[in-house]
Amino acid sequence: MYSKIKQIFVIFLGLFLLGATVEIFAQQPTASPTPVLYTEKTLAQMKQIQQAALQSDFALRQTAYLSYNIGARLTGSPQAQRAVEYVAGEMRKLGLDVRLQKLTVPHWVRGEERGELVEYDGMARGTKQKIVLTALGGSIATAPNGLVADVVVVNNFDELTQIGRKNIEGKIVLFNNKFDREMAAIGFGGQAYRHAAGYRGGGAIAAARFGAIGVLVRSAGGSQNRLAHTGAMRYAEGVKKIPAAAVSFEDAEMIDYLAKMGKVKIKLLLTPQTLPDTTSYNVIADLKGSEKPDEIVIVSGHLDSWDLGQGAIDDAAGVAVSMQVAYLLRQLKIRPKRTIRFVAWMNEENGVVGGRTYAQEEAANISKHFAAIESDLGANHPVGFHFAGKPEALPFLAPISKILKEQGAGLINLTEEAGTDIDPLTSKGVPSFAQWFDTRTYFNYHHTAADTFDKIVPRELAENGAVIAVLAYGLANLEQPLPR
Amino acid sequence: MYSKIKQIFVIFLGLFLLGATVEIFAQQPTASPTPVLYTEKTLAQMKQIQQAALQSDFALRQTAYLSYNIGARLTGSPQAQRAVEYVAGEMRKLGLDVRLQKLTVPHWVRGEERGELVEYDGMARGTKQKIVLTALGGSIATAPNGLVADVVVVNNFDELTQIGRKNIEGKIVLFNNKFDREMAAIGFGGQAYRHAAGYRGGGAIAAARFGAIGVLVRSAGGSQNRLAHTGAMRYAEGVKKIPAAAVSFEDAEMIDYLAKMGKVKIKLLLTPQTLPDTTSYNVIADLKGSEKPDEIVIVSGHLDSWDLGQGAIDDAAGVAVSMQVAYLLRQLKIRPKRTIRFVAWMNEENGVVGGRTYAQEEAANISKHFAAIESDLGANHPVGFHFAGKPEALPFLAPISKILKEQGAGLINLTEEAGTDIDPLTSKGVPSFAQWFDTRTYFNYHHTAADTFDKIVPRELAENGAVIAVLAYGLANLEQPLPR
Repeated sequence: MYSKIKQIFVIFLGLFLLGATVEIFAQQPTASPTPVLYTEKTLAQMKQIQQAALQSDFALRQTAYLSYNIGARLTGSPQAQRAVEYVAGEMRKLGLDVRLQKLTVPHWVRGEERGELVEYDGMARGTKQKIVLTALGGSIATAPNGLVADVVVVNNFDELTQIGRKNIEGKIVLFNNKFDREMAAIGFGGQAYRHAAGYRGGGAIAAARFGAIGVLVRSAGGSQNRLAHTGAMRYAEGVKKIPAAAVSFEDAEMIDYLAKMGKVKIKLLLTPQTLPDTTSYNVIADLKGSEKPDEIVIVSGHLDSWDLGQGAIDDAAGVAVSMQVAYLLRQLKIRPKRTIRFVAWMNEENGVVGGRTYAQEEAANISKHFAAIESDLGANHPVGFHFAGKPEALPFLAPISKILKEQGAGLINLTEEAGTDIDPLTSKGVPSFAQWFDTRTYFNYHHTAADTFDKIVPRELAENGAVIAVLAYGLANLEQPLPR
Repeated sequence: MYSKIKQIFVIFLGLFLLGATVEIFAQQPTASPTPVLYTEKTLAQMKQIQQAALQSDFALRQTAYLSYNIGARLTGSPQAQRAVEYVAGEMRKLGLDVRLQKLTVPHWVRGEERGELVEYDGMARGTKQKIVLTALGGSIATAPNGLVADVVVVNNFDELTQIGRKNIEGKIVLFNNKFDREMAAIGFGGQAYRHAAGYRGGGAIAAARFGAIGVLVRSAGGSQNRLAHTGAMRYAEGVKKIPAAAVSFEDAEMIDYLAKMGKVKIKLLLTPQTLPDTTSYNVIADLKGSEKPDEIVIVSGHLDSWDLGQGAIDDAAGVAVSMQVAYLLRQLKIRPKRTIRFVAWMNEENGVVGGRTYAQEEAANISKHFAAIESDLGANHPVGFHFAGKPEALPFLAPISKILKEQGAGLINLTEEAGTDIDPLTSKGVPSFAQWFDTRTYFNYHHTAADTFDKIVPRELAENGAVIAVLAYGLANLEQPLPR
């Protein structure tokens, strides 16, 4: 998934385009003498950590293991459980205090899924044209022998309302909202995604309200390689649950073309199951601080993934660069002043139980959470980091930015949310961070069968490792409280 | 498929890189006074045809119909038969003499296909990791409940020989030969493809000779989107037939990684069937010449396709631009001097029965085939055309090139073969032609589920239509015999 990082200060886009950096914050005169933010030693160590991260292949090897040896890690699956055990074991090997935080998680299992055009203009007798589709996470099943119905194509929610119940009742609605590839291509993949994902999340409810018996959504993603993008969907109390699937870009185009020529009838077969809730875990591993061990800086990624690919970019990479922070500090024999807490979240994709449970159980301890970082947008080149917090905190971050600028990652984007799992902390005032990624290709693979290890560019993963490690260590050793 | 177009004259590459064109041929002094090659009227008409083609959407609409309304057209399928009837009907609508040339064609039908890793290092108990694969055309089936065996990975035929029978017997061989994407990216997609396709075609024979019981080949194509590229494969007399499938790039990478860590066992299920040979047809439609009606210029594409996608770039587009020649001439009320013969070939992909039967039945009439054109490499921007014939013929083609240069398609590449279906004519001396395409993306989609109509760029299809129509009309109206 992708959290709702919003660029609330347009100025930062301006800075980005001008090639400027947030160094300006550090240069602004302050009313009182500038307090020490980072000791000289800390600054030197941050540079040392950065170089070590850029050289390390620890995160790459971990990403490979999670992707290839363990594979897709949907919440509740045996692979998710193995990933919990594996990551806990790796963190213990690094000598950290590891605990498993017990969670009660949803357990949805994909089944068979098949789509076919069974009637349309010009169809060759005795044939069916295949529709590439995949059930959306949480969808109910169709009848065991499938659902056959006419398709009605709408481009957006307004069109659905306009054509009304008489044209929708008893049919399958295809929401043909187009993922904005141009927007993604110029760097705003997240914005393009959020817009498209609205149909994936809310399409079933909207269509069912007009009497639809099934819903298809054009994939919320940029693939043009006959891949369907899965992802979470919702039902609402009092609205009939209908089966929901994403079709590939190509199949949406075909159905739209054929529907303009006449009747299009489709057969849809989905056999997913929602099993009883089950038990899973967040993996939590602490590297104790030397001076303020009760103050915590979280570095994290989510361990669960969708089930179609290997969950490499979403989010083995994020877990791996987070694991790497402790590895690097051990390797360099550096101990942070505050505690750096690694968390591998469970169930980000279809419930966020891990993130919510953590925030609940730590409710009395939120003020001790100095900062939280989540890496959950792949592993492409980072241009800097997102910061969800008070603008007054920006000058405190400028020295970190200055170091990251050396690797081309010197920008800061002030935003509202930095990651889905840490959002329950962010909303309680914990300053929150994430890499600001180049997202131009991320949404071409995200939530598809092509989210595989080969999509990781080793150099770019190393850059991410450096951003996360420098940021985590810098925050852990900041000499002042961060305004919150 | 893709015929073996070979660049035998390196000089043409040099000209290409220098931005030069074959106009030099026209400027070379000749011993005798230059004969008239094209009348002024013909030259003017060629320009008129070019402009009409660049404006027309006829080929685009035909490509859409073949791709969407008819769909994949594997030889022997109901869709292939419908395509025969549809194209014949369209050509009759244009007022051409249409005949169906009866063929006895192979009838291979894809079945279920599934691959799973069932044992490897780190595997989560109770899980299987999916392998994306597709049966190669012509493959036999596995046992009905599949084939379970260890995988042995080799990068090429030499490695197979080196590791020998003791390491291969009773196993499944994965030929992990890498498609050269860099070569494709700089414009040599065909060369990259030919190299990779050697393993697809010959892998089963080579592996079976060492006792393998199944063969997987890394896809002969550039997709990095979890798509397997199908294509034809061969068996040999006296060598055991073993099931053969292509795995996606991603799956080849994963198997290779896991095999380096230890044993990898795979379950392979393929249920294709080779049914008795059946009847199909080449569609042949003549636009009679006004002066030399017995001399023939063929314009053609192949009507059959692989079955995974819609056969849009391979080769609905080629059929459509060929159909368009007659459409344009009718629209402009222009009649060629020689007969322009449209042919939609059947069975290019898995047998070339259409091309071979035509050449056999026209054996006594080969000298009347003035030229043959085949469009079978998609619909990307054409930079000129390939010519398989005598170098002495090049000056005769220069005026055509000069006109095509106006649309950025002024280059000629002297080669040995211009198209699979017309190759039986080429080898008997018929001057043969094809567009010289930008092939940088073609092999990313070719023979995959993503060979769909959306891959056609309307402007570039129109450019192809112009190259084919200008070339066909120019050849039909050439005032001199073409050296052969």
